[in-house]
Amino acid sequence: MATQRRLANAIRALAMDAVEAANSGHPGMPMGMADAATALFTRHLKYDPADPKWPDRDRFILSAGHGSMLIYALLHLTGYAKPTIDDIRNFRQLGSPCAGHPENFELPGIECTTGPLGQGLAMAVGFAVAERHLNAVYGDDLVDHRTFVIAGDGDLMEGVNHEAAGLAGHLKLGRLIVMWDDNKITIDGPTDLSRNEDVVARFDAMGWHTVECDGMDSGKVSKAIDEATADTRPSLIRCKTIIGYGAPNKQGTAATHGSPLGPDEVAAARKELGWTDPPFVIPEDVAKGWRDVGARGNKARAEWQRRLEASGKKDEFLARMTGKLSDKWLQPLLDKLIADPPKVATRKASEMALECINAAIPATIGGSADLTPSNNTKTKDIGPLDASNYGGRYIHYGIREFGMAAAMNGMALHGGVQPYGGTFLVFSDYSRNAIRLGSLQHAKVVHVMTHDSIGLGEDGPTHQPIEHLQSLRTIPGLRVYRPADAVETAECWAAALANDGPSLLALSRQNLRPVRTKAAKENLSARGAYRLKVAEAPRKVILIATGSEIEIALDTAVALEARGIGADVVSMPCTEAFDQQDAAYRESILPDVSNREILRVSIEAGTTFGWERYVGLHGLKIGIDRFGASGPAPALYDHFGLTAAKITERVIAQLEQREIA
Amino acid sequence: MATQRRLANAIRALAMDAVEAANSGHPGMPMGMADAATALFTRHLKYDPADPKWPDRDRFILSAGHGSMLIYALLHLTGYAKPTIDDIRNFRQLGSPCAGHPENFELPGIECTTGPLGQGLAMAVGFAVAERHLNAVYGDDLVDHRTFVIAGDGDLMEGVNHEAAGLAGHLKLGRLIVMWDDNKITIDGPTDLSRNEDVVARFDAMGWHTVECDGMDSGKVSKAIDEATADTRPSLIRCKTIIGYGAPNKQGTAATHGSPLGPDEVAAARKELGWTDPPFVIPEDVAKGWRDVGARGNKARAEWQRRLEASGKKDEFLARMTGKLSDKWLQPLLDKLIADPPKVATRKASEMALECINAAIPATIGGSADLTPSNNTKTKDIGPLDASNYGGRYIHYGIREFGMAAAMNGMALHGGVQPYGGTFLVFSDYSRNAIRLGSLQHAKVVHVMTHDSIGLGEDGPTHQPIEHLQSLRTIPGLRVYRPADAVETAECWAAALANDGPSLLALSRQNLRPVRTKAAKENLSARGAYRLKVAEAPRKVILIATGSEIEIALDTAVALEARGIGADVVSMPCTEAFDQQDAAYRESILPDVSNREILRVSIEAGTTFGWERYVGLHGLKIGIDRFGASGPAPALYDHFGLTAAKITERVIAQLEQREIA
Repeated sequence: MATQRRLANAIRALAMDAVEAANSGHPGMPMGMADAATALFTRHLKYDPADPKWPDRDRFILSAGHGSMLIYALLHLTGYAKPTIDDIRNFRQLGSPCAGHPENFELPGIECTTGPLGQGLAMAVGFAVAERHLNAVYGDDLVDHRTFVIAGDGDLMEGVNHEAAGLAGHLKLGRLIVMWDDNKITIDGPTDLSRNEDVVARFDAMGWHTVECDGMDSGKVSKAIDEATADTRPSLIRCKTIIGYGAPNKQGTAATHGSPLGPDEVAAARKELGWTDPPFVIPEDVAKGWRDVGARGNKARAEWQRRLEASGKKDEFLARMTGKLSDKWLQPLLDKLIADPPKVATRKASEMALECINAAIPATIGGSADLTPSNNTKTKDIGPLDASNYGGRYIHYGIREFGMAAAMNGMALHGGVQPYGGTFLVFSDYSRNAIRLGSLQHAKVVHVMTHDSIGLGEDGPTHQPIEHLQSLRTIPGLRVYRPADAVETAECWAAALANDGPSLLALSRQNLRPVRTKAAKENLSARGAYRLKVAEAPRKVILIATGSEIEIALDTAVALEARGIGADVVSMPCTEAFDQQDAAYRESILPDVSNREILRVSIEAGTTFGWERYVGLHGLKIGIDRFGASGPAPALYDHFGLTAAKITERVIAQLEQREIA
Repeated sequence: MATQRRLANAIRALAMDAVEAANSGHPGMPMGMADAATALFTRHLKYDPADPKWPDRDRFILSAGHGSMLIYALLHLTGYAKPTIDDIRNFRQLGSPCAGHPENFELPGIECTTGPLGQGLAMAVGFAVAERHLNAVYGDDLVDHRTFVIAGDGDLMEGVNHEAAGLAGHLKLGRLIVMWDDNKITIDGPTDLSRNEDVVARFDAMGWHTVECDGMDSGKVSKAIDEATADTRPSLIRCKTIIGYGAPNKQGTAATHGSPLGPDEVAAARKELGWTDPPFVIPEDVAKGWRDVGARGNKARAEWQRRLEASGKKDEFLARMTGKLSDKWLQPLLDKLIADPPKVATRKASEMALECINAAIPATIGGSADLTPSNNTKTKDIGPLDASNYGGRYIHYGIREFGMAAAMNGMALHGGVQPYGGTFLVFSDYSRNAIRLGSLQHAKVVHVMTHDSIGLGEDGPTHQPIEHLQSLRTIPGLRVYRPADAVETAECWAAALANDGPSLLALSRQNLRPVRTKAAKENLSARGAYRLKVAEAPRKVILIATGSEIEIALDTAVALEARGIGADVVSMPCTEAFDQQDAAYRESILPDVSNREILRVSIEAGTTFGWERYVGLHGLKIGIDRFGASGPAPALYDHFGLTAAKITERVIAQLEQREIA
């Protein structure tokens, strides 16, 4: 039987060979952490390559995603169907599942897509929360697993690690174990070029259990993991390693981090490691050793399967893990809102929807980055999820927007829970890369972002979104919803919960009058845009607006009609959804005629950048192309020209100009 | 003479009264920290209300910007010309300089705009760096001041605080003193709803000096400040306070955080505090006490002025503080690049420009968030700025993109230095709100962002910007430059250094062939867009491209001309600058004729969202509207249809369709 070191050297060899073949990649990290990973995968991690999606498997997250060859090697060696050795030969080539960074949509066995530093760790916190919550709901028989992370210095320098570690420490997530690859090297050189922190003491201060070991002695790593699993706090295992270990002339330097070692150094490393086989060849003793290790989890999975079969909750559990959510709450709510239309802020309307959603869908876990009374994200029937009650369904995330968004991604990717979380729209800037990474992974998360324009008033330009709506709409796959009243808010929530990926609700602070007062046959907001008001006089104008500007558009239309100018009002709560409607529907809402024939006008209390997509080069774009100001909302709307009277004037001026031109 | 407590109560009274009058705002923080701020402003802070811009003043930064009434009260009471008592009466009203959050463009005495939590602290690190650097250059006679910060729990929970504290600890910024308003309350309730961290131990672990005191005893606060100023490390002073202190029924609760106390509670607080005067009236003993305090710094300023007059470096120092930068480096570089055009990546071209800039402009301080060898931000003639040499001009920021961007804002706002710093473009997501906050404040910072498209290749979709260029262009005031070759890169650098606010350079990883091979009479890139190639056959097409896609556009034009289709190529390195050209210039580049007459085509390796602004509804937008992939750059360009051959086909198809339609 191959020794642990020899098993580890297979990882080293594959990492060197794949990076060399690609002439691109990061050999240093897999070579430094090969022994630690071998300890984890041979003795501790609970997994079964034959069933990568087994719900009660341990989760392994390579937060230092640039070291992707580590996980590709491990998945291949332990017997996952993919990646094959040919996949590894094609590392970093177009079409290979072995991408530059680990991508969960490419390979089962990869739990989440990592690379943007700090976020693997932050997503892992979400995985660990989901596990404890489902454990509280379904018990040890069905849910009883751990989340392991390998993190590098970059992960622990990024600000989001502070938020993630703080949340994990506070929630006492003892099932979370982070193995820190302490190799004292970053891209610029030694870590002491930029850091003099006592990392272990910092984690101690944040309520973590900490332990140190020689990261290149798998036996010692294994003992440290034993200690970590025994502790009730989240654990940081400091694995002291040498980056690029085995490459005799380059190890311990930044030269091994992100470049191929080169043929000479690879040859020298083979000699150093006693690895005599050619590139991409795994000798049989090592191959068998790893396969045996991989088969180890089969028994545990079979036992779990028996427990599941015996459980009275089998069907419920499996249904929940599929992630499909009931929409039965929607129609009764819409009926009520049509019968008695409330004049409320859409953040309040969101709370009204959530009261129904949280009652109908036990999988939801809400929260806010310390803006609960502003975001209206906590409903009456759900209590806090904390260390004393993992069965709770509301997380006080603290002032940690990025950490919250990343944790929500992790919860969604774990499965079995449906996270949503609130902050102010302007702070989407803080969590932006997590929103993006969620979209890349189709993580079904709902970002509840209130105070969505200058309508928030007195807090002023630092807090007033201007560019945010449009800039968020540029993120591929993300659905941004900006509803205009309580009916649209309910519809947008339903659309968000039906999406295969993240959604973002942009909600008003200020009260809005009801504009959807008649029952509809379908979820009109899910169409992205629809005609809210039909021109009465011959149609000369189409007013396109979103959210809080719908009522202004309606008033503008009334003023135009009073002058004999027919005006449609199109409500466009989700531009992305509208773009995906068929051509006939789009043409029916926005006919492709020149602005001379029908003038198109966009109205949104934010940047006008990009509204040319709907109004063309000669349409009229009403918005705000500078920063906001501090003052009461009505004063600001007037100041920035966003009143029906001012817009009506501009529309008429534009129509007259056209007649002259 | 009024007691310290009575002086402090003036702050409390003004905070209560202003928030009450506005019916909006945050009384809790100013009331809790009034005594600590009084200690600082009466005994320690070096300032002169008669000359708020005195270069050697101490800087005071209210990181907990929601407590803006604290600084407005202090500026008013100590004798600054503004805010007047009427300004304070108009707190949070449109037109008042007393905005919801402190805005440095409204009031001298406010050093930076704060509100987005954590960033005041992070900017303060930049202020402290600038001070130590200028001290190293100009000596104690001219530069010898401190940076004081008041930070709340939100500031210390946000991830960026970890980056800022880590950087400050590493750089041993002993002139930085942070007073933590430890009131144990956040918006959601007690801090232990979301945090169980030992904050002091964490700062200890990060190399800070820490000290604790009763934050409502100004004498004890003063002793703590003395201890902090004596220490050579950055200091955290834990000020134990009661939020809303003085409001007998609400103090110590979240109810005082962000809402008016209400008339009854204000009356009760007046009684509790022994404050008998009507709203907005400061009794004469208190007014005189504060005025005397404010006059205290006059002598120090006069002495400094004498030292300045006596200094041989007076003119140089003053010139440097104005921030005007030489552009004498540009023409010789352009001459060289035209004479011998290099085929290099624009990140390399940026390094070539920086070699000239750093030699010509001693104010520059460069850096990178641990991507120095990738961003090419370090030039040969500048060495590290670290605790052993504050006179250095290159900062190894570590893996701290957000902290770097915020610190650069602080450095720029301090004055006397011109910061630039590098990371990958995709990680603008991490620093985005600092980029925005810099733009709001006109902080002259250059963000050097390399690896600006799928052209980075193998690292894959997590690292490939798609939406970033367009989403950054939506930020008001920010100039985004994407040069096409070494000449444009030099021009864009010159334009960036001439801007009154932040600029962002988006630079390629891959080599680009030179496209600007003839001398020009002006900085064409500063125009935002210009005609790079004139149609030879009758013009049917205008190809608009940026950066690395220019060479593709040129090849496409050649292919079109070969078929008798005349095609202009417009290089558009900065859309914002082009939008600000006069109508005649814009018309000369992009004539306002229908796409049937001249087809406009945009080519950029990113989202097509928003390119309708230049090509209209019926133009052709070539780009990438989904996430990228891992593979070599040429394979990716082909995969995503970004080759001259594929684009030529699409252009011809579109032209033919038009002829049929």
